[in-house]
Amino acid sequence: MNLLITGGAGFLGARLARTLLQRGTLAGQRIARLVLADRAAPQDAALTSDARVQVKVGDLAAQLPTLMAAPFDAIFHLAAAVSGECEADFELGMHANFDTTRQLLDACRAAGNRPRLVFSSSLAVFGSDPSLPLPEVVGDATLPTPQTSYGIQKFIGEQLVADYTRKGYIDGRSTRLATVSVRPGRPNAAASGFLSGIVREPLAGLPASCPVDVDTEVALTSPANTVAGLIAVVEADASSWIGRTAINLPALTVSVRAMLDALREIGGDEAVALVRFGADPSVARMVGGWPARVASERAQRLGLRADSDFRSIVLQYVRDNASAVTNARARAAAGLA
Amino acid sequence: MNLLITGGAGFLGARLARTLLQRGTLAGQRIARLVLADRAAPQDAALTSDARVQVKVGDLAAQLPTLMAAPFDAIFHLAAAVSGECEADFELGMHANFDTTRQLLDACRAAGNRPRLVFSSSLAVFGSDPSLPLPEVVGDATLPTPQTSYGIQKFIGEQLVADYTRKGYIDGRSTRLATVSVRPGRPNAAASGFLSGIVREPLAGLPASCPVDVDTEVALTSPANTVAGLIAVVEADASSWIGRTAINLPALTVSVRAMLDALREIGGDEAVALVRFGADPSVARMVGGWPARVASERAQRLGLRADSDFRSIVLQYVRDNASAVTNARARAAAGLA
Repeated sequence: MNLLITGGAGFLGARLARTLLQRGTLAGQRIARLVLADRAAPQDAALTSDARVQVKVGDLAAQLPTLMAAPFDAIFHLAAAVSGECEADFELGMHANFDTTRQLLDACRAAGNRPRLVFSSSLAVFGSDPSLPLPEVVGDATLPTPQTSYGIQKFIGEQLVADYTRKGYIDGRSTRLATVSVRPGRPNAAASGFLSGIVREPLAGLPASCPVDVDTEVALTSPANTVAGLIAVVEADASSWIGRTAINLPALTVSVRAMLDALREIGGDEAVALVRFGADPSVARMVGGWPARVASERAQRLGLRADSDFRSIVLQYVRDNASAVTNARARAAAGLA
Repeated sequence: MNLLITGGAGFLGARLARTLLQRGTLAGQRIARLVLADRAAPQDAALTSDARVQVKVGDLAAQLPTLMAAPFDAIFHLAAAVSGECEADFELGMHANFDTTRQLLDACRAAGNRPRLVFSSSLAVFGSDPSLPLPEVVGDATLPTPQTSYGIQKFIGEQLVADYTRKGYIDGRSTRLATVSVRPGRPNAAASGFLSGIVREPLAGLPASCPVDVDTEVALTSPANTVAGLIAVVEADASSWIGRTAINLPALTVSVRAMLDALREIGGDEAVALVRFGADPSVARMVGGWPARVASERAQRLGLRADSDFRSIVLQYVRDNASAVTNARARAAAGLA
């Protein structure tokens, strides 16, 4: 089986790649080749040293002609410019999120082998237009009213995937990810970045800023659960995949206050003391417009479930990123030396 | 006031143009110049001889640089490839309905004067996915699940209009038209074309074919009511226009049987006898997937209403197209000589 992960050097792409390589199979077939395409090379030696892995570095749109020379059986299309970037630079977002997605779909169509393709959309397709408020709980049949260019571009991507699938050019599935937390590494330009930063930075002994009120509720999914969701979506056979519209991945609803409580429980008061509050109205507006409560009827039927609580998510982060955690109490809680 | 109608030589564009020129004003301002852009020149001397009218013939995308040299105050964007064409030729639809719309919006953005723009979307954004059936009545908040490339392209256009509006590049409003009936002239490649043909052809003494069952229900709007809707949408001030998502124009729900009853009432048995039934499964599938019952909450607040009955729509057609109607009984019913 010949696989492609776009955005394969990113945090989620690289984690998905590691998981796939450890499994060795996808949908019952042996993974013979895994191509990671991204603007930068993956930093992870476990990936770059694996004989099955090929790394392709560059702008995805520019790379497509050579990249698609050998057809792929399945594609995880994760590459995207993030919400903050797209608000700041309209053309960048349209190029990275929209044109590139369309060109990838056209390349799949030209390949002619109807690859299975997972499009990673986002709950950011839901935004709260003050005059057309979202329902309390958003479901798979809720009309998205995106309030960011990122959300619009993702929603348009869903439509393209649906039509290319209907026409038989691909076997596409769009799945809306919640904010992934806790992300390792450095802050990025996503408006949701602080939802990882307020845990990651304090556990490394560093200050973090929280631009929203502590009572703000958000919908989160752990990295492990997000990767499991992406794999389940591509593995679902055609008869268990319902319709062609996007499915919402299950997400845990949690307030920033409850996130900080979990941080205190695991990292102590010293960790929480490193979080500084200072409202950033533009971030607060974007985050406040995203849905905090998500119904995931179709994902549930695929057996997918939200993470159970944020404490487990923090422990997952500590165990998976031991070298980045200096907080002794957290290390002990996770059973690290 | 400087106006542009794309698709200005088409039936709806030309009728809108005549109506605007007769009114002389739009949103309280005098219409100084009305540009009709289309692939062909309008055939209507009342338009081409009007000193306010300028005709621009050619592919819209190719014309945009010169067309937009003088900024427009308001734009009616009606130009589109129709449903049947887009199913038959995927690239044509993406070019005509998607790329051209985006390029028009980019040209508006470059013009920098934030023109008011009406995007004529379509109830064809609603399609019936067998595994995700539509509600009995579709409203402004119903999630569209388009089952045609035309529907997808229109729905993507709505998203672009929403985001360009949010960013302040245009003052855009998307409005979903129902099937317009009775259209004059010759059949086109729209799957909905027979919904005009089964009235127009018999009233001209010509045979017409009906590719769906007589019990099929459809949502229709008369030409006059459609034009009135487009004008009301562009005239609505920002405070009465709610949200940035598309509004459904009110439409009359009618069965093909009831349409033929109205035809019989006005044109007699001889007219109905000219309608031949022969199922065309591809057309029946497309039409059957469109919603027949439409709620139009936001359009109602603008004062818009559906046509009252199909008989009035047939009479409107006879009066507006006297030269094309040979059926003596229908001419008498409409008060024509």
